[in-house]
Amino acid sequence: MKIAVDAMGGDFAPEAIVEGVVMAASELPSNVSIVLIGRQSVVEPLLLKQGGNHAGQIELVDASEVIDMGEHPTKALSQKPNSSIGVGFKLLKEKAVDAFCSAGNTGAMHVGALFSIKSIEGVLRPCIAGFVPQITGGHAVMLDIGANADCKPEMLAQFGEIGSLYAQYTFGIDRPRVALMNIGSEEQKGSLIAQAAHQLLKDNNRINFIGNMEGNEFFAGKADVIVADGFTGNALFKLGESFYTMASKRNISDEFLDKTNYESVGGSPILGVNGNVIIAHGVSSPLAIKNMVGLAIRQVEANAYVKIAQAMS
Amino acid sequence: MKIAVDAMGGDFAPEAIVEGVVMAASELPSNVSIVLIGRQSVVEPLLLKQGGNHAGQIELVDASEVIDMGEHPTKALSQKPNSSIGVGFKLLKEKAVDAFCSAGNTGAMHVGALFSIKSIEGVLRPCIAGFVPQITGGHAVMLDIGANADCKPEMLAQFGEIGSLYAQYTFGIDRPRVALMNIGSEEQKGSLIAQAAHQLLKDNNRINFIGNMEGNEFFAGKADVIVADGFTGNALFKLGESFYTMASKRNISDEFLDKTNYESVGGSPILGVNGNVIIAHGVSSPLAIKNMVGLAIRQVEANAYVKIAQAMS
Repeated sequence: MKIAVDAMGGDFAPEAIVEGVVMAASELPSNVSIVLIGRQSVVEPLLLKQGGNHAGQIELVDASEVIDMGEHPTKALSQKPNSSIGVGFKLLKEKAVDAFCSAGNTGAMHVGALFSIKSIEGVLRPCIAGFVPQITGGHAVMLDIGANADCKPEMLAQFGEIGSLYAQYTFGIDRPRVALMNIGSEEQKGSLIAQAAHQLLKDNNRINFIGNMEGNEFFAGKADVIVADGFTGNALFKLGESFYTMASKRNISDEFLDKTNYESVGGSPILGVNGNVIIAHGVSSPLAIKNMVGLAIRQVEANAYVKIAQAMS
Repeated sequence: MKIAVDAMGGDFAPEAIVEGVVMAASELPSNVSIVLIGRQSVVEPLLLKQGGNHAGQIELVDASEVIDMGEHPTKALSQKPNSSIGVGFKLLKEKAVDAFCSAGNTGAMHVGALFSIKSIEGVLRPCIAGFVPQITGGHAVMLDIGANADCKPEMLAQFGEIGSLYAQYTFGIDRPRVALMNIGSEEQKGSLIAQAAHQLLKDNNRINFIGNMEGNEFFAGKADVIVADGFTGNALFKLGESFYTMASKRNISDEFLDKTNYESVGGSPILGVNGNVIIAHGVSSPLAIKNMVGLAIRQVEANAYVKIAQAMS
């Protein structure tokens, strides 16, 4: 298994990325290797400084260009085919690697996935899934957390199904509980879109829909899959993450709050595309990068995107 | 000044309400009295048990009916004119009281306000404002937190202006900083509605619009007024409140987290109507009711709704 990592993406790239990859490599199963993509002249010395390539488990692939955080995704991808993101998707499309991870330009990662490995047939719109730690243990998968600010009811309903399949195969949860983020528990509550999505989710007998949930139940262990439009989902996810930031600034230490630290999972998969694509926070630390690699391995083993494609066909 | 309180509304009514009102009465300025509305046969003994009417500062008004939490707002209001909510709005409309507060049926409070004192002329849709404690001190006013699940850009833009006037007059903030809740800092980010609202807010020179804010900045002290549609606002507000609930369950004690306790403010005003109407959590404790009375006094003194009406005309 080969996990490709963009060495050049993220606010602290390439240093933090290389350090995280080296951390990950020290614990890699023997059948896994990491393909680090970036400017060889920059990345190679960093890798040597960090202790080298760990029994050949880190492979370097040169990419002469870099897509910056602020660049326009589509324009940047077409103008910089040799960027680390461009090369990563080329390798993923050719199946030379099994997953591609980056803490770089999120838009470019999303567009790159759509242009290279493409949406799964039948998927209306790919989305980004976030992991929300639950007070009862484990994580809920929330989708969408930002790819689609405007959602139709049919998209929300499909997020429920995609999330359910992802939770089932990646987390091994039997009949995942799917809930719709809303502003009341009754089915007639909420925006017109949420009301319509509720009915579609309720009518879908391929999922275990448990009804609406509310903002105060975000961490409560009520659901395994949280369905939200990308606007609400993004705002909630970021507020949820800020809990850890705030607590740590105030010297509050707590086992559960530590799990709300973005570093503990390290990445968010793009779901609904024909491959494993994981994006990470721009601010990603080495620990976050290490954990993102761990998530990528889990996804490759679970083969969730193939299961999603089979279910959608 | 007379503050009317619905004795029958809330999960722990009438006990918790009467207890809260008695707590408030012990600290009331001499020019303020509380008008407690409810079934006299039930409320009077409770009031006596709690220590009586505090030098005549608590006045009892009989209301023979009660609107339950689950009742349909419009139907309940028309069928139960002698309910505590019905009587409260009658007194408010006649200006026999200066404010009306209830922890009862939120929908009935909203509809009651629209039918009795009515929307301010020029206001597209009244909304509910929530107070979000800020790490830098004080509170931001977030609106809407749930009255309007579906919002047009023009409504969001007006929430910005209403919130700005409220913060200015009630909190004494000069040129309140108004921010739009969104999923990115750039003005072209977000849903189509958020993008359009951004432009309207930017073009309004009566407010100090500082641009977009994101979920992780909810408590950060970035803005005095947070503009959101009632769907996003409700979900965020409830998630924000859950921080305190979760922290207290985990025995985490922290000065700032304590401020995220809903009890510390106790109520949310309905803004954009011709009077002071405050609604509270169904679970309101005596302390929450006491603080809601405090908020009502502050609003009456500030006369914010009149200032809003003047600005809108």
